[in-house]
Amino acid sequence: MEFISTEKTRDNLDIENIIEDYNNGLLKHGDIVEVKGSIHRLRIMSGFAFVVLRTPRRLFQCVYTDGEADFDINTIPEEACVIAKGKIVTDERCALGFEVHLTGMTVLSQPAELLPLVINKKELKLGIDVLLDNRAITLRNPRERAILKIADGVMCAFRNFLHSEGFTEFVAPKIVQAGAEGGADMFELDYFGQKAYLAQSPQMYKQMMVGVFTKVFTMSPVFRAEKHSTSRHINEFQGLDLEMGFINSFEDIMALEARMMVYIFNFLRTEYAMELAELKVTLPEIKDIPKIKFMDAKNLIQEVYKRPYRDPNDLEPDEEKLIGKYFMEKYGSPFVFVTHYPTKKRPFYTMDDPENPDFTLSFDLLLNGTEVTTGGQRIHDYNEQVAKMQSRDMDINDFSDYLMMHKCGMPPHGGLGLGLERLVMRILNLDNIKYATAFPRDLNRLNP
Amino acid sequence: MEFISTEKTRDNLDIENIIEDYNNGLLKHGDIVEVKGSIHRLRIMSGFAFVVLRTPRRLFQCVYTDGEADFDINTIPEEACVIAKGKIVTDERCALGFEVHLTGMTVLSQPAELLPLVINKKELKLGIDVLLDNRAITLRNPRERAILKIADGVMCAFRNFLHSEGFTEFVAPKIVQAGAEGGADMFELDYFGQKAYLAQSPQMYKQMMVGVFTKVFTMSPVFRAEKHSTSRHINEFQGLDLEMGFINSFEDIMALEARMMVYIFNFLRTEYAMELAELKVTLPEIKDIPKIKFMDAKNLIQEVYKRPYRDPNDLEPDEEKLIGKYFMEKYGSPFVFVTHYPTKKRPFYTMDDPENPDFTLSFDLLLNGTEVTTGGQRIHDYNEQVAKMQSRDMDINDFSDYLMMHKCGMPPHGGLGLGLERLVMRILNLDNIKYATAFPRDLNRLNP
Repeated sequence: MEFISTEKTRDNLDIENIIEDYNNGLLKHGDIVEVKGSIHRLRIMSGFAFVVLRTPRRLFQCVYTDGEADFDINTIPEEACVIAKGKIVTDERCALGFEVHLTGMTVLSQPAELLPLVINKKELKLGIDVLLDNRAITLRNPRERAILKIADGVMCAFRNFLHSEGFTEFVAPKIVQAGAEGGADMFELDYFGQKAYLAQSPQMYKQMMVGVFTKVFTMSPVFRAEKHSTSRHINEFQGLDLEMGFINSFEDIMALEARMMVYIFNFLRTEYAMELAELKVTLPEIKDIPKIKFMDAKNLIQEVYKRPYRDPNDLEPDEEKLIGKYFMEKYGSPFVFVTHYPTKKRPFYTMDDPENPDFTLSFDLLLNGTEVTTGGQRIHDYNEQVAKMQSRDMDINDFSDYLMMHKCGMPPHGGLGLGLERLVMRILNLDNIKYATAFPRDLNRLNP
Repeated sequence: MEFISTEKTRDNLDIENIIEDYNNGLLKHGDIVEVKGSIHRLRIMSGFAFVVLRTPRRLFQCVYTDGEADFDINTIPEEACVIAKGKIVTDERCALGFEVHLTGMTVLSQPAELLPLVINKKELKLGIDVLLDNRAITLRNPRERAILKIADGVMCAFRNFLHSEGFTEFVAPKIVQAGAEGGADMFELDYFGQKAYLAQSPQMYKQMMVGVFTKVFTMSPVFRAEKHSTSRHINEFQGLDLEMGFINSFEDIMALEARMMVYIFNFLRTEYAMELAELKVTLPEIKDIPKIKFMDAKNLIQEVYKRPYRDPNDLEPDEEKLIGKYFMEKYGSPFVFVTHYPTKKRPFYTMDDPENPDFTLSFDLLLNGTEVTTGGQRIHDYNEQVAKMQSRDMDINDFSDYLMMHKCGMPPHGGLGLGLERLVMRILNLDNIKYATAFPRDLNRLNP
C-alpha cells in the first residue's frame, strides 16, 4: 500500500524561502538557486536582458546574459510559467541585496496567444469596464492584486481579533423566506416551488446565535437588489457581521469596534507592508475614536461649513464627507462614530433611546468621510419587540421563528455589520468600490 | 468632545476569566465574584437549590440556600439572563474545584413565556423536524451547540493552516451567469432583467485567482438545486475551496490536504477539548494517509467483501463505507485517498491521466467511509482545454472569461473542495448532516 505523507516539506523554489535563507546566511553570493514564477516583464537589450519574475507577493529581477545561460531568452514569452535557475549575485543596489544571474530555465507552460492588454506596467490606467471585463489577467498586475491582498488581510484580522475576544463563527443561510429589512430590494428565486429570497443581511440569524454563544460573527455574501449606480455600492458584497450579548450599553459595541480597527490597522501594517508600499498607502495610528450624536453632527456641519441640511433623518454623502473632514482636521482622527440615528430610518429591531424615542441606540462608523459600519443595540424584550413591529404595521406571524428567541429569553445585545469592500476602499482611499473586489456585481455586470 | 476608548478592558463577569483567576490564585475560597449567564437549569429542593448557569462554552453550577441570598429563587425562571453574585467555595468534588454560593442576583431579562420544549436535558432526543423548526432555542442545548462550536473550529483551523502555507483568501461571487458544472442543478434568478444562477462552485474563480496569487482559498456558500433527500446532502452548504499553482503532480494537493487534516484534528483536540468531551468524541491521531486507485478500490471491495459492483464509473455509498472499513481495519486509518476517477464522471476542467486517458488525475478523500473532499489537477494548457470542451460538445464561446486565463498562461495547478457540514458530520460521526449546521436548507426546509 502507498501512503501520502503528512510531513511538511520545505519548498526551495519559493522566493520567500530563498530570501530567508539569504538573509540567514544559508545562501550566499555564488550559490545556485531555482525560483518559480511567471515571466512578468522582459527587457531585452543588446547582449543581455532583465527578466522580472512575478511570484505570489513580489516581483523579482533576474539578469540574462548571452552566453552565460543554456537557453535563448527570445524563445520565452511574457506570462510563461517557469523555474528560473541561476547564480546569486550580491548587489547592494537591489532592494533585496541580491539578484539572480540566469543559467537555465525550465518552462512549465506558455500562453497560447499574446495578451490582449498590457498588464505589466506599474499602473494599468484602463477604463473600469476594460479592467473588470479582463479580470482574469488584469488582477495579475501587482498594484491591482495588492488591493485584494489587503482584503485578505482584513478578513484574516477580523477573524483573528474576534476569536481572541471569545467570539464564535457560524454560517448563516443565504436562501431565506423573508428579509430582515422587508421584502423590497431582495433578489427573488424559486426554491423547489416555494418563493424564496437571497438574504440581504444575516441579522435575524446572528441574533438567534447570541442566545446560543453570546458572542458570534459570520462572514458571508450579502445581496442587495438596489438599483444604485454609485462608486460606493455593489449588489453583492462580503458582509462582516458580529453580534454580542450581555452588553451594558450600545457603547460596548463601539468599544469593541474601536479595538478591532486598531487590530486590523496594526495587522496590515506588520503583515502586509509589501502591499501597502506597492499601493503607496501609509496607515494612520488609530487612537481613541471621537463620537458625536447624529443631530449634533448635522448642526455642527451646518454651522461650520454653512451648509444647510435638507434631510433631517439621514446623512447625505456630502455631509459624511464634511464630518470626516472636520474630525480629521480638529482631532486628527480618520474615524468618527455618529450615534443616535433617527428611529424612522432604522429597522424594527433597533432599540429606541429611552431618553428620547425619536432616536435610537445606534451608530455608524465613518472612515475618511464614508460610512463603513452600521450597528446598534437590538430589542431583547419580547413585548417591546412585538409592540414596535405592530406600530409599524408588521404582521408578527411572519416573524414567528425570529420572535421565538425573544419569547424564550434573550440577553441585552447588539452588533454591527461591515462591508469588506467598502472598508478596503476607504482604507486604501480608492475611487470606486469595484476596485476592492475581484469580481464585482453591479446593475449591468454579471461577468466574469 | 467624547471619545470611545481603544483600550482593552478585562471582563470580570466572564466565567472563563474567573476560572483563570482562581487557578492562578488571584481568586480564592471566600472571595465574592459576579458571573453572567443564562439560567440553564434550576433544581429547587427543600431549603436550597442548584442553579446551573449557561455561559458561552460551559455550564457552571451555583448553589442557592434559603436565607443566604437576598432574593427568592422561585421568582427567577429558567432562561432568564442574569448576573449571579456569590462566594467562591472550594470543593474538590466539582469539576472546576470550586462552586459559587449565591448571595445576590441581577436579572437582566426574562423570557416572556414558558419554553415550548425542554432544552436543558443532556440529550434532546427530539425528532429532527422539531429540532430544526425550533433551532433558535434547541441550539442552546450544550450538546447541540457543541457541534456548531466544532464547525467554528474547523473553519478557523482551515484558514490558519492555509495562511501558514502562504495561501491568500479571496471572495468568489455567488450570482453568476453560468455554472462550472453545467446548468442543471442550479437555482435560477432574475438579475435586473438578466437570467442568472446561484454558483454551484467557485471553481472557475479559484482557478483565475491561481494566476494571480498562486495559492488561494475561499470559504463561502455553495448552492445545489439537487432533488436529493439523503442524510448527507443539503442544498446550501459552506464550501471550503482551495487551489494551488506550480504543482509537480496532483499528489501535491493530496499532500497538502493530509497536512491540513493533521492540523485540523490537532487544533480541535487542543482548542476544543471541552466540546469534544461534551460530544464524547475522541479524535484519532492522523498518520500518513493510504491512497488507492479507483479501479483497484472497486476490485478490492468486490474481492474482500464479495460484493460485485454495478456502476463501473462511480463509487456507491456502500462501497465507500466498505473502503473506509477496510482501511480502518487493515491500516488503522480513518482517512483514505481514492485516486484516478473515470474521466466520464469528472468535469471538463479535470486533467486526464496521460498514461490512461479513461481516468483522471483526480481524487476523493474518504473519512470514516464517506467522501469529504473532491479534488484533482486541472488542465492549464489552452489548446488542451479547448479540445476537451469540444469533445464534450461545449461551446467555448460560453466560457470566454474562463478561457482567457488559459490563453494568457497558467501554471500547472489543481485544488480541492470540502463541504464544512459533511466534514463536521464525519468527524463527529453524526447520523445526519443537518445536525452539523445551524439552519439547514433541504427540499422542504426554508425556515428558520
